[in-house]
Amino acid sequence: MSIFDYFRSAKKDTASIAKERLQIIVAHERNQRNKPDYLPKLQQELLEVIRKYVDVNQDQVEVQLDNNGNCSVLELNITLPDRAQ
Amino acid sequence: MSIFDYFRSAKKDTASIAKERLQIIVAHERNQRNKPDYLPKLQQELLEVIRKYVDVNQDQVEVQLDNNGNCSVLELNITLPDRAQ
Repeated sequence: MSIFDYFRSAKKDTASIAKERLQIIVAHERNQRNKPDYLPKLQQELLEVIRKYVDVNQDQVEVQLDNNGNCSVLELNITLPDRAQ
Repeated sequence: MSIFDYFRSAKKDTASIAKERLQIIVAHERNQRNKPDYLPKLQQELLEVIRKYVDVNQDQVEVQLDNNGNCSVLELNITLPDRAQ
């Protein structure tokens, strides 16, 4: 599965309420499967960068990590409080 | 346009060559349009985090920033050299 197929198959958002949301997707397509995957380590560092800009609590963050053949995908979904910029 | 529509409409990859690639997508869905957009500033910081893990040159990075109503999307496409992990 390629990176692009992943995004095309992304699940539909059924909620119609306008929320302040931030979504970060990191997709790593490797040409060799036996190389180490650094996405799990990257996750915390990405959140630290985001926290410089918005007020994010750990319980507002949903993390999903998928491995599919030679494609690893890290997905962070953050619902921001209304007071954040 | 919601975040999810954006990913579903992502362009198809026509190249069939197996490349080591990294794609980062940051989508910010705002409930108010008049708030400042911090995605352009975020771009450089995200790249610095990625550089801790892989050897990335500036000319290997394609950056795209889209604004569509209340949804801002930052897309970084990085083609990694074969020697990188």
